[in-house]
Amino acid sequence: MDTRLGEYVDEFTRRDWQTLDPDAVDEPVRIALVGLGWFSREWALPGIERSAFTEATVVTDIDADAVDEVASETDLTGVTPEAFRAGEVAGEYDAVYVATPNATHLEYVEAAAEQGKAVLCEKPMEASADRAESLVEVCADAGVPLMVGYRMQTDPVVRRLRDLLDAGFVGDPVHVHATMSQTMLGELTGDPDQWRLDPDLSGGCALMDIGIYPLNTTRFVLDADPVAVSGTTRTEHEAFAGVDEHADFRLEFPDGVAAMCTVSQNAAHASRLEITGTEGRLILDPAFYEREERELAVERGGVRMDVEVDPVHQVEEEFAYFGHHLLTDTPIYPDGRHALIDSRVLEAIYESAETGEVVQLTE
Amino acid sequence: MDTRLGEYVDEFTRRDWQTLDPDAVDEPVRIALVGLGWFSREWALPGIERSAFTEATVVTDIDADAVDEVASETDLTGVTPEAFRAGEVAGEYDAVYVATPNATHLEYVEAAAEQGKAVLCEKPMEASADRAESLVEVCADAGVPLMVGYRMQTDPVVRRLRDLLDAGFVGDPVHVHATMSQTMLGELTGDPDQWRLDPDLSGGCALMDIGIYPLNTTRFVLDADPVAVSGTTRTEHEAFAGVDEHADFRLEFPDGVAAMCTVSQNAAHASRLEITGTEGRLILDPAFYEREERELAVERGGVRMDVEVDPVHQVEEEFAYFGHHLLTDTPIYPDGRHALIDSRVLEAIYESAETGEVVQLTE
Repeated sequence: MDTRLGEYVDEFTRRDWQTLDPDAVDEPVRIALVGLGWFSREWALPGIERSAFTEATVVTDIDADAVDEVASETDLTGVTPEAFRAGEVAGEYDAVYVATPNATHLEYVEAAAEQGKAVLCEKPMEASADRAESLVEVCADAGVPLMVGYRMQTDPVVRRLRDLLDAGFVGDPVHVHATMSQTMLGELTGDPDQWRLDPDLSGGCALMDIGIYPLNTTRFVLDADPVAVSGTTRTEHEAFAGVDEHADFRLEFPDGVAAMCTVSQNAAHASRLEITGTEGRLILDPAFYEREERELAVERGGVRMDVEVDPVHQVEEEFAYFGHHLLTDTPIYPDGRHALIDSRVLEAIYESAETGEVVQLTE
Repeated sequence: MDTRLGEYVDEFTRRDWQTLDPDAVDEPVRIALVGLGWFSREWALPGIERSAFTEATVVTDIDADAVDEVASETDLTGVTPEAFRAGEVAGEYDAVYVATPNATHLEYVEAAAEQGKAVLCEKPMEASADRAESLVEVCADAGVPLMVGYRMQTDPVVRRLRDLLDAGFVGDPVHVHATMSQTMLGELTGDPDQWRLDPDLSGGCALMDIGIYPLNTTRFVLDADPVAVSGTTRTEHEAFAGVDEHADFRLEFPDGVAAMCTVSQNAAHASRLEITGTEGRLILDPAFYEREERELAVERGGVRMDVEVDPVHQVEEEFAYFGHHLLTDTPIYPDGRHALIDSRVLEAIYESAETGEVVQLTE
């Protein structure tokens, strides 16, 4: 009997990176959460709790009410940002998750590094490539591990897509299309995420906040980095004055593979990654949002398979990976050096949008 | 009872352009076919015969065997290209369908115009914008109607998609993605279509032959023309030496609407058009090939409808439109002036691929 498909299906959601038995973990990595926006509360906190390798112990935010609320609902220690940075409860955590507005990541990472704590920093790593580079250096100098929160990279569906590409399932990749959009004002009205409209805090809007998904996920699955980029940004709605409401960009990877990407903070919901190769296609749709049940379509030689998977909790997987790798002292893949390339590419796309020119990234 | 959906469904495939009762047509437009490649034989001939407004009467090709074969299988008059151009059987047809290699369209259209015959010319209209312009002028000077063979424009699914956009169903269009690819060498081995590999005959390969579908269909459904374009072409396989095997391009429409397009003559089959607006999305997948059963997905406000339609014979619809409009003396929409814009845009994309610069099309 041919068991190949059976084995493939059974192993589809395996954690290919896991060497430590979750049941054998007595002392999970204790995490301090910095920043209590909706993603932290709705996704990161539950993700940390679900993961066998992590537990949340401390929370902080500039919004004292939010800290009180979370602390009173849980057994977490709530502190002010000042107390956190001063290390007043540093004995209560081993690692720090930073999910504040982009331009404030550095200050919290500096504090964590000074305290000798490992860091999981949200993406984009900072509001500019220069600040992102400082952030990487701070962690390197302090000798603390730094992971960047690319939750797509630890999603098993995305990892299987990458495996297929790596195994040559579609031949040589030729073209990539990626689109991701949402109605930020409509979906998130009244939410503290409105800091994304402040260029000083965010460093940009559609491209910084959303563009990083098509960019990083394409890099991850192709296992390659762009060599040239071009792009355009556009703002029509007055709420987006000073930042980019819509953006499109083209990433050129080695061998001329082109990724055509569009993102928007003010368009109907879209979420799709599509790779066409010389011999087949791989389509992830929906692709990028944490709340979506990702579906993978696999096409080759007239055969199409649609793979629907019981969704993992994407942020649990991310924190499990982080905790697991700290406990096993294993190098982390989406690290600062990896994330720094995104910061530079995003900056190059903004530059291209200003000048109308292609920006070469090879030196 | 709410009959809105019922009426919509019932009228979905209606010919919104048809004013003449097909059953009332005694004398359909008699068509001479020039060029007997696989598309002419497999699609155009049956399309002409199926349409109540047209009938095929004459065939010609530089391949005398092909002419003999078709003439012996049917009751059509087969003639040599020389005899055709000399008008030897001009009394047997009212209109001429030109489906020869791109760079030879002009000579046959000149003959047809001289004979006072209406013309349906395959797309791209010619191998260069200059020759395309001459072709348009030849017809204008002779006062003969000229239609260009954009079979997507008379497909009811495409027309309904256009209606929805026009009615504001998705709000303002924001981004378009289009992809179309095939393995030309594999799918068409031994076929006379290999003239597409000869730049003198074709004027280009992936972009000219395939790129025109995303380009023209996007123009048609948005009812707008690009104001700026950029693009890249690439050739890896030796069989494509001298022409473009792969291409990607960005079309910028008025108001900054961006269409991101990829095409290939040597990649896995893909065929998709996707429009994201401020309030919804319209997705045609498969979209572009004559043999596909087009499916339209309509998304707005959390509702998604998938529309599958009994496929029309796309080339029947095209010839029915052509014949109908000649019989009723009605202006033809995809005319030479319309097609000339595609020729200029394609040339601008090739220029951009050479220079790496964006080419502005507004003057």
